[in-house]
Amino acid sequence: MQIAIVLYDRFTALDAVGPYETLVRLPGAETVFVAERTGPVRSDTGALALTADRTLEEVPAPGIVVVPGGPGQTAQMENEALLDWLRSADASSTWTTSVCTGSLLLAAAGLLQGRRATSHWLALDVLGRLGAQPTGERVVFDGKYVTAAGVSSGIDMGLTLLGRIAGDEHAQAVQLLTEYDPQPPYDAGSPHKAPAHLVEKFRAESRFTLT
Amino acid sequence: MQIAIVLYDRFTALDAVGPYETLVRLPGAETVFVAERTGPVRSDTGALALTADRTLEEVPAPGIVVVPGGPGQTAQMENEALLDWLRSADASSTWTTSVCTGSLLLAAAGLLQGRRATSHWLALDVLGRLGAQPTGERVVFDGKYVTAAGVSSGIDMGLTLLGRIAGDEHAQAVQLLTEYDPQPPYDAGSPHKAPAHLVEKFRAESRFTLT
Repeated sequence: MQIAIVLYDRFTALDAVGPYETLVRLPGAETVFVAERTGPVRSDTGALALTADRTLEEVPAPGIVVVPGGPGQTAQMENEALLDWLRSADASSTWTTSVCTGSLLLAAAGLLQGRRATSHWLALDVLGRLGAQPTGERVVFDGKYVTAAGVSSGIDMGLTLLGRIAGDEHAQAVQLLTEYDPQPPYDAGSPHKAPAHLVEKFRAESRFTLT
Repeated sequence: MQIAIVLYDRFTALDAVGPYETLVRLPGAETVFVAERTGPVRSDTGALALTADRTLEEVPAPGIVVVPGGPGQTAQMENEALLDWLRSADASSTWTTSVCTGSLLLAAAGLLQGRRATSHWLALDVLGRLGAQPTGERVVFDGKYVTAAGVSSGIDMGLTLLGRIAGDEHAQAVQLLTEYDPQPPYDAGSPHKAPAHLVEKFRAESRFTLT
């Protein structure tokens, strides 16, 4: 089985690398980073590029599709080459997944109509307007569609999906080897927990406010 | 201030990308991925390459040094070009940091003699034999030296260091924007929590057993 992780200009790196670091350990699977063109693809900060080893066309029928989010997602919402590939890949995929605002791309491709799904907390309203049923959960399964919340949640998504496919023990082994025993220094990782004035500040500044 | 994240053949991607995704949001800092040669550097699985944008020589005096770990660390333990750069960069750095077996490289460069430090749980014994004082903690500060445990712990390290430098509120804002509210599907992320037979299996297979 192929696992295709989609890159596009100004994606968020951890959105892609979190699921990668867990799913790459799925026995018998080949993980491949894909984009419209091969070569380095710059992340949102400009400070990091990941290499796309294959074009979208070269990986037409992956078993698992992973779509990261990031500021660059906005520019992809009308990129028919990418949306066509998502629809086509989804037609034969076993799992179609996203992290952060990657779910907005799945929704734009028409793949999340009426489905329970999630996204970055700042993008949940937009996800709803695109026809999905947003939930506040961190990882959402609806049939073969698996969506994760913002950025770091892709690690939880990858590990959860790994358990579904390869069994709990294999996923626990990967959790142990990646020493995923999180100890955040603050309890501010969701809008329900962070200081209210920070939540309000980011809501006011959000690129999703006017969309 | 420059933040230099060191790449080398067969590093572990999340070791580098976890601290990157948090520290890149340090106000006024420039994050740069460095390696002996510029261009794509393959991670341990072969499925992902990150781009080194600068050579080590081009970034002689970063304010923060970040050294990831990974299976490729072993081959770097006698790479004097890298070790010399680490010593030289450390001479003027404000913070010298590592994730996973990156601490073994700091130790090999002579930077952790007698210091409290950590590493991947499978490498703590080796870290001690290299002259450091290994602890079982996830993120260890000893003066300007900050070491993190295995792979995913670099996120906690990056966020903690960000708080030390830029203040709690800024770090909380970054935690909120990266939605770092971890919900692992299992409680198996440390050798104290994972099923004992998995811990024993990996200890028996470890590349550190005979070193």
